[in-house]
Amino acid sequence: MTSHPFDDAVALEPLGDGRYAGRTHPAYANMVGPFGGITAAVLLRAVELHREVLGSPLSLTVNFAGPVADGPFEVVAEPVRTNRTTQHWSIALTQEGVVATTATAVFGLRRPTWSATETPAPTAPTAETLDRQQLPPAIVWAQNYEMRFVDGLITPGAEHPDSVSTLWMRDSPPRPLTFASFAALCDVYYPRVYLRRGEMSPAGTVSLTIYFHADAAEVSAQGEAHLLGSARAHRFSEGFFDQTAHLWGRDGVLLATTHQLVYFKA
Amino acid sequence: MTSHPFDDAVALEPLGDGRYAGRTHPAYANMVGPFGGITAAVLLRAVELHREVLGSPLSLTVNFAGPVADGPFEVVAEPVRTNRTTQHWSIALTQEGVVATTATAVFGLRRPTWSATETPAPTAPTAETLDRQQLPPAIVWAQNYEMRFVDGLITPGAEHPDSVSTLWMRDSPPRPLTFASFAALCDVYYPRVYLRRGEMSPAGTVSLTIYFHADAAEVSAQGEAHLLGSARAHRFSEGFFDQTAHLWGRDGVLLATTHQLVYFKA
Repeated sequence: MTSHPFDDAVALEPLGDGRYAGRTHPAYANMVGPFGGITAAVLLRAVELHREVLGSPLSLTVNFAGPVADGPFEVVAEPVRTNRTTQHWSIALTQEGVVATTATAVFGLRRPTWSATETPAPTAPTAETLDRQQLPPAIVWAQNYEMRFVDGLITPGAEHPDSVSTLWMRDSPPRPLTFASFAALCDVYYPRVYLRRGEMSPAGTVSLTIYFHADAAEVSAQGEAHLLGSARAHRFSEGFFDQTAHLWGRDGVLLATTHQLVYFKA
Repeated sequence: MTSHPFDDAVALEPLGDGRYAGRTHPAYANMVGPFGGITAAVLLRAVELHREVLGSPLSLTVNFAGPVADGPFEVVAEPVRTNRTTQHWSIALTQEGVVATTATAVFGLRRPTWSATETPAPTAPTAETLDRQQLPPAIVWAQNYEMRFVDGLITPGAEHPDSVSTLWMRDSPPRPLTFASFAALCDVYYPRVYLRRGEMSPAGTVSLTIYFHADAAEVSAQGEAHLLGSARAHRFSEGFFDQTAHLWGRDGVLLATTHQLVYFKA
């Protein structure tokens, strides 16, 4: 039995005192450095593996400060403050002492309260009835994700009136969902400017935030099922835009809301 | 001529090496500690005042790790990495050596590119035709904000079918908009759970992210005009919910998109 490439890509060797050794994985390579989603997953793993961790992830913000070079890296995760039900983390990924990525995370304990969901999943055909989208082989990391578009596929050379993409997604080959793989799935949407303009151009995430609505049982209950995601931008201006996405699971449960600020040239 | 209370509240005395001394201001007190928006503004000011700052704010994430006690505090702002067009910051607010708030920020240079706005301002009567909402005197900080609700005012004792509030807002007394006052305005929305349930209950922001779409000229062009904001939640579950808001200025320009994760009891 061989391990899933995702697990190899997020593997961290504890060095003690919240420090870990990791290494970029060729299967998750992007144009420059690794796929941002896999970096987010690695940083989340560093907290999950820490012996002082409290509960499960509530929020994660990852700042892509500079390129991550192919090869080894070090992660340090520090519990900055631990309260009764929440715990605040500061995390950094460095290479040869230079900071490539910074992050903050909030972990915590959930408890039964009044609950409501205001953002239902959009109506969509089942995943099985839709074609799997084959992204260009140059986008190496995307080969690890099964994406079946409901809406908002790029038409090369044609502008699109809005930036909404809705798609079914999961790891490829399928893998039971965990918080870390789920964090990576929050970053699978290509930059919304590609869709609007009908062409690829230099673009990269500057800062990514994930709010985890799902608890451990809800994450586990997804198994290898497809998740439904929908992303859109709000404003593109002077080299930057933001995009927001929602991710729903089985029975339409809203698992996460995620936001990012993206740098672009166009 | 006296200064505006906002300027007094965000005043920082440079101590060198990215360290600053500040003090909570009684006019911006909340139930426990200061209004989160004023803390966000203070942390942004620490970067703006730093001699190495590059350009204007692009994103800010503030993690409210623990209560801020009334009295003096220290802020430290560190430029973690400076690139050609973006600069990543790590910021912390401490009191007697204990971390109360952590933050990361991205500042940078903007440049002309293709641009588009996908999220137009909702249709709303002009601010002048709407009543000013008087919040209870116990919510001290709110007395510094003029709020004129278009929609989504709490009806005590009555549940509300959705969590959308749309309102005109500005400093009171009016003050020309700056990035710092604008950051504070991103946090004026009361917790969405109050609106849904028609009652106040213990609640507090855990993590706040702001994406600044506006450049310095667009911020300056607002002057003392009312801004239009609209906030809503996506999912309330097990003690936490998220809320997203958009903030538009003169001529319907989208100035910011802001998100937060909120702790609640109910």
